[in-house]
Amino acid sequence: MTMSKPPVLEAPIQGGSLLASIDDFLAADLAEVEQILWRELESDQPCVKDILQHATRFRGKRLRPILVLLSARACGEVTDAHKLLAAVVEMIHIATLVHDDVLDEASTRRHVATVNARWNNETSVLFGDYLFTHAFHLASELPTSHACRVIGRATNKVCEGELTQIHERGNLDLSEETYFRIINGKTAELTAVSAHIGAHYAGQPADVVANIEAYGRKLGVAFQIADDLLDLVGVEKKTGKTLGSDLQKQKLTLPIIRLLNTASSPDASTIRELLAHPDSDTRSELAVYLRKSDALEYTATTARRLVDEACEHLEVLPESPARQLLADIARFSVERSF
Amino acid sequence: MTMSKPPVLEAPIQGGSLLASIDDFLAADLAEVEQILWRELESDQPCVKDILQHATRFRGKRLRPILVLLSARACGEVTDAHKLLAAVVEMIHIATLVHDDVLDEASTRRHVATVNARWNNETSVLFGDYLFTHAFHLASELPTSHACRVIGRATNKVCEGELTQIHERGNLDLSEETYFRIINGKTAELTAVSAHIGAHYAGQPADVVANIEAYGRKLGVAFQIADDLLDLVGVEKKTGKTLGSDLQKQKLTLPIIRLLNTASSPDASTIRELLAHPDSDTRSELAVYLRKSDALEYTATTARRLVDEACEHLEVLPESPARQLLADIARFSVERSF
Repeated sequence: MTMSKPPVLEAPIQGGSLLASIDDFLAADLAEVEQILWRELESDQPCVKDILQHATRFRGKRLRPILVLLSARACGEVTDAHKLLAAVVEMIHIATLVHDDVLDEASTRRHVATVNARWNNETSVLFGDYLFTHAFHLASELPTSHACRVIGRATNKVCEGELTQIHERGNLDLSEETYFRIINGKTAELTAVSAHIGAHYAGQPADVVANIEAYGRKLGVAFQIADDLLDLVGVEKKTGKTLGSDLQKQKLTLPIIRLLNTASSPDASTIRELLAHPDSDTRSELAVYLRKSDALEYTATTARRLVDEACEHLEVLPESPARQLLADIARFSVERSF
Repeated sequence: MTMSKPPVLEAPIQGGSLLASIDDFLAADLAEVEQILWRELESDQPCVKDILQHATRFRGKRLRPILVLLSARACGEVTDAHKLLAAVVEMIHIATLVHDDVLDEASTRRHVATVNARWNNETSVLFGDYLFTHAFHLASELPTSHACRVIGRATNKVCEGELTQIHERGNLDLSEETYFRIINGKTAELTAVSAHIGAHYAGQPADVVANIEAYGRKLGVAFQIADDLLDLVGVEKKTGKTLGSDLQKQKLTLPIIRLLNTASSPDASTIRELLAHPDSDTRSELAVYLRKSDALEYTATTARRLVDEACEHLEVLPESPARQLLADIARFSVERSF
């Protein structure tokens, strides 16, 4: 399938070099987070070992631990609590991915076979549960229950967002409002709490913590909009995952909602017909209509506006290399092609 | 299908009157636990409300909250922490049931359509996650993280047990040792931690807590053995769930392991053939071989021995009506027919 690049991907910032800068900046801490994460997950059951061995290959962007650590640096110092909780949020994120792969029946994730493809759905469900419960077990190593409380609350909202998404599947009249409610839950709650943890455990007062959390929330919404756009118009080889799954599962995302809201009446009928009976050609068939419309531009502009707002919240902090990287990540999250 | 009652079910103790006594004894506390549980799960998302409404109909034996409350009474007084944590362990138990129903593709649970039958697998996976994360969120209302830690640890082991069970499915050479390892994880960890919580939050010293936890663990193993026996030779109307699912899923349980270990060589070949190609007649076809063997008696005796051991651990406590009910529950858990 050949498709023109969508506007949001036309001017990618130097993602590779940004990630390299972050890796330099946080190298020691990120390595420690990784150690904490895999040490917590260790098991003496042979079959669990096998799955863990496989799962180490799903190495992602580590956005959430990076948000914890960078927020901590921008707000003060990285403490042991930050590193432990960075592992916790990443573990919860991986748990949701493992369960998403069951729901989406996806066969690859980060260029590697998913757990359900390599084993089966049952194993994926239980392995996701294993990750969830280990996340809370790890969080409980801290003496107070504050972390369990804020992370528990965020994860509750993640589940609500996902349940609403499943419930609205196939609803071709999905409103922007409901779309935003869904992605605020399923994605932004976890990035918000990651940023919150960074600020809170660096000893910041409540108003600063609230601003940093708001940064994390808006970044998360923007990130998910970009992710949804990639699922629609991205390149499978670059993203390393099965694309077009939103269309296959009849999950309406922002560009499609915009397209339906602005298309001429005959076009809208054809588009609805395509959405109602998705197959492997749906992505390329929709491309024609997307190119005629402002849907991709509108989506990109919305994501960029959220990024601007996210960065404004950072101004509560003094300028620093860490604050700059937080702003860069926000920009990168919507300009990436993977 | 008509089957003779297995020995273990021949002399049922007065389950109905025991449950009534417990209800009398704990009525006010149990009602409060129920309120705490449903208040924690409340959601403003319409689709989540619908699922919760449906889930209120899965009213089970409430074994785990009863264990928390009775252990608390036998050890001292029921505190607010006990009631909150009784709701937490029940929530985790319901979460595992909801996910089990996906794994087992079961259509009814406690006489009511399962979430996956009423909605779909995706909803069940996410609703189970919702229950798990709310459980930890609720536990985090206590100021220290002790409860999150012990419950997190137990739930980790539950998942390991279930993962091992899935991995061993279809293994007709499953050993008793591995069978006990599986059920110790998937069932006994949660009954053990329930009893632990009762004793710990009543202010008992570590050695007493360890004995009460050991009571809960042995009770859990015995309970699961009885459950596995019911799946094999129970009556569907009484249990309120789809039976024979262990055979359908090729999960070997104690009576079958014993049967295979003791059958004559030609019988063993036939039994293996039946187990390798399960269908709706497998349960009744196996009954012939079970009646010829000591497998049901052996299984019942094993469960009863564990109950005796469980009750011995209770002797660390002074005699009391609560201690008596704990002993009665242990006996009931293996003598029930539902």
